[in-house]
Amino acid sequence: MSEFSLIQQYFTRATPSAILGVGDDAALVRVNAGMELAISTDMLVCGTHFFADADPYLLGHKTLAVNISDMAAMGAQPRWATLSLSLPEENSSWLKAFSDGFFALADAFGVELIGGDTTRGPLNLCVTIMGEVPQGQALRRDGAQPGDEIWVSGKLGDAALALAHLQGRMQLRETDFKAVESALHQPQPRVALGLALRGIAHSAIDLSDGLLSDLGHILERSNVGAELHLQTIPHSAVLSNYMNQTLGQHCVLAGGDDYELCFTAPASNHARIDHISQELNFPLSCIGNIVSGNACRVLQADGTELKLERGGYDHFA
Amino acid sequence: MSEFSLIQQYFTRATPSAILGVGDDAALVRVNAGMELAISTDMLVCGTHFFADADPYLLGHKTLAVNISDMAAMGAQPRWATLSLSLPEENSSWLKAFSDGFFALADAFGVELIGGDTTRGPLNLCVTIMGEVPQGQALRRDGAQPGDEIWVSGKLGDAALALAHLQGRMQLRETDFKAVESALHQPQPRVALGLALRGIAHSAIDLSDGLLSDLGHILERSNVGAELHLQTIPHSAVLSNYMNQTLGQHCVLAGGDDYELCFTAPASNHARIDHISQELNFPLSCIGNIVSGNACRVLQADGTELKLERGGYDHFA
Repeated sequence: MSEFSLIQQYFTRATPSAILGVGDDAALVRVNAGMELAISTDMLVCGTHFFADADPYLLGHKTLAVNISDMAAMGAQPRWATLSLSLPEENSSWLKAFSDGFFALADAFGVELIGGDTTRGPLNLCVTIMGEVPQGQALRRDGAQPGDEIWVSGKLGDAALALAHLQGRMQLRETDFKAVESALHQPQPRVALGLALRGIAHSAIDLSDGLLSDLGHILERSNVGAELHLQTIPHSAVLSNYMNQTLGQHCVLAGGDDYELCFTAPASNHARIDHISQELNFPLSCIGNIVSGNACRVLQADGTELKLERGGYDHFA
Repeated sequence: MSEFSLIQQYFTRATPSAILGVGDDAALVRVNAGMELAISTDMLVCGTHFFADADPYLLGHKTLAVNISDMAAMGAQPRWATLSLSLPEENSSWLKAFSDGFFALADAFGVELIGGDTTRGPLNLCVTIMGEVPQGQALRRDGAQPGDEIWVSGKLGDAALALAHLQGRMQLRETDFKAVESALHQPQPRVALGLALRGIAHSAIDLSDGLLSDLGHILERSNVGAELHLQTIPHSAVLSNYMNQTLGQHCVLAGGDDYELCFTAPASNHARIDHISQELNFPLSCIGNIVSGNACRVLQADGTELKLERGGYDHFA
């Protein structure tokens, strides 16, 4: 099957919101009046971001999910995506499952695949996603202010715990692994939350590299510091069994792949954020405060500071 | 050096035309009123698209050039790009040269790098480019009409000839190789031509896979056929030495990597296109006609048909 047939068979779907989709030198779209275009790209590499035998359906999901998550973190409505794939061989069943996983998530979030590229080479997946956000309302990393409360969505650390198990660094019981596995393989982008936080949050980021690392970007860009309360950081029942160990604390504070949102907002918006949590039927937890300076301190239940290097997963660290 | 330092040092430049550039969850741009956004993406893989020892400066040039070329083929003004790199190791001198080549071309065409991703893995380069084109004026592949003349810019086949030499499939004299080498390594996107063809050409495509293959996309999308006159297809003096051989004809008709434009336009625009050629001081050659049906025939000087499969370079053929 030729490159063009591959694209035709697996990656060409109707794109009603685009002027021109897959099949020309470029796609054409029209950005709505009053909107800024938010653009983000992520590359997932076999052996670095996923295992060679990764389930292709779940991989299709995750490849798009990590990109949609960036739109969520900007308060943008995801609209269009391109997908470039480098494939070591043509494998129809793999491609079918991958594209099914990709499009299931695309359909769930109203994202249209408008272009891409397929080529031969080591397995590599690169998505560029575009979304719309009303002018001036994007949730940026540089807006945090001293006095802001720091919030996270969902529960942190399950993805890192599942990865530790898969890499043989520890051994979970089968039922426990089943409970945390989906956090690693099927992250759910928090788009509705991102949209709801427009005008409410001062800053936001999605948690791909780990809480301390990603919050660190907000602190650096906003030129502020933070105080976090370890016992307020939300985690699953499975992970609670490990929270008195370095492993558990590491999963929660520095584990990557959560794809929850971390955001800061003035304390005066606390009740409104609780209300958003109820509306979305989804946990949002206040885990600390933005402070002046540029240190990030993690306080334990007894008030003492946890000694931990700031840092998460860095591909070139 | 960390991923973030790499991005900071080599890939963060001022982006005055963007609202927000590299360094957040997404970049933010504003598309001008009355404009459609054209989006294209290309992935270049070591071993498939370039040699492992490729000059990194030239590779930086080419990685962006093939994407800008897609904008030229749409009649779009290139504006913004993202770059994702997978790198087997951190190599500062390679990265410096690559980014220098990339930004030299970006600066020449007013393209701003607004985002990207760096990760570890087999060498892979993926650019997504965005440009603007006035509503309804994009040069698409589906607009060719019987009676249109078929044109190409520049000279075809030198890139394929240089590649044949480098792959040892033939042996060029050193001076001849020097004369054709830049066509392969430093393609020049025909942006000014694409802009000039708005409202004049019925269809356009850039020649990445070879004339017959790429023109074939226009024919298929427009549901038309073509008659080409072999002796009118422009080629270099070096290549003329091989035009009585299969090699030379193959380079001109099916060689990839030319990144010239192929376009169709009504015969009534012939003089205007000649005028554009003079204005741009750049050769534009009329090489045949669009006809009804869906066959593509190549006629030799004596009027007989050249027997050649339609097809170019297809990564999964």
